[in-house]
Amino acid sequence: MNKIEHLGIAVKDLEASNVIFEKLLGVAPYKTEHVDREGVKTSFFNTGNSKIELLEATSEESPIAKFIEKRGEGIHHVAFDVTDIQSEIKRLKSEGFVVLNETPQKGADNKWVVFLHPKSTNGVLIELCQEIEKETP
Amino acid sequence: MNKIEHLGIAVKDLEASNVIFEKLLGVAPYKTEHVDREGVKTSFFNTGNSKIELLEATSEESPIAKFIEKRGEGIHHVAFDVTDIQSEIKRLKSEGFVVLNETPQKGADNKWVVFLHPKSTNGVLIELCQEIEKETP
Repeated sequence: MNKIEHLGIAVKDLEASNVIFEKLLGVAPYKTEHVDREGVKTSFFNTGNSKIELLEATSEESPIAKFIEKRGEGIHHVAFDVTDIQSEIKRLKSEGFVVLNETPQKGADNKWVVFLHPKSTNGVLIELCQEIEKETP
Repeated sequence: MNKIEHLGIAVKDLEASNVIFEKLLGVAPYKTEHVDREGVKTSFFNTGNSKIELLEATSEESPIAKFIEKRGEGIHHVAFDVTDIQSEIKRLKSEGFVVLNETPQKGADNKWVVFLHPKSTNGVLIELCQEIEKETP
């Protein structure tokens, strides 16, 4: 785990929340992006060496829609940057963590991503992400 | 807002969670600390340029006890490092954010801290913190 790569925040209205977080952080989002597989549109803000990702659901089946229905808006996940996602998956499984998808998927912002089940990490949904430099992680 | 200074995670059992996060992050906590005013004991892990803070309640009136009772274990707050906490309070108030304590208090890990009400920040409890270098912030 190299660092906190980003913090993901579930919001109801991305445009309205972009205004709030631009005021809060003092910078505008540097990109917005749709991730169709996850049913979300997202925006990213730089803050120091990490990022804030806002996520709005684009379908009722989106994990973000379900999260907001259950808990309201708020912090949804924390993502850690890793150098070699495959070896981290192997290491974390051997330590007893529950990996939700063992094959890394393409996430937002040009990353290979996997998630750990919150039941093995004190209720925290943790994402591992590795910058995509080639077609297979 | 200079960077994410730390991410605060509410846990039921600090010792057990220290073991989990040491395995996850690959580093041991660099300190544990009691903050009597908040009714918590905490531990801190370095991860890149930020930290993970675990918080266990030491009394039933602690905000952490109430958080866990209501929502279970999980991410409790995100803290941003600021250079001048007084001017940030003034700036954020003028932007419409609700500051919970206008006089910075001494928090864990040698910081002046203030919190923003989650109702003005999409359900996210945000802490501002400034390293303590002198007796008044």
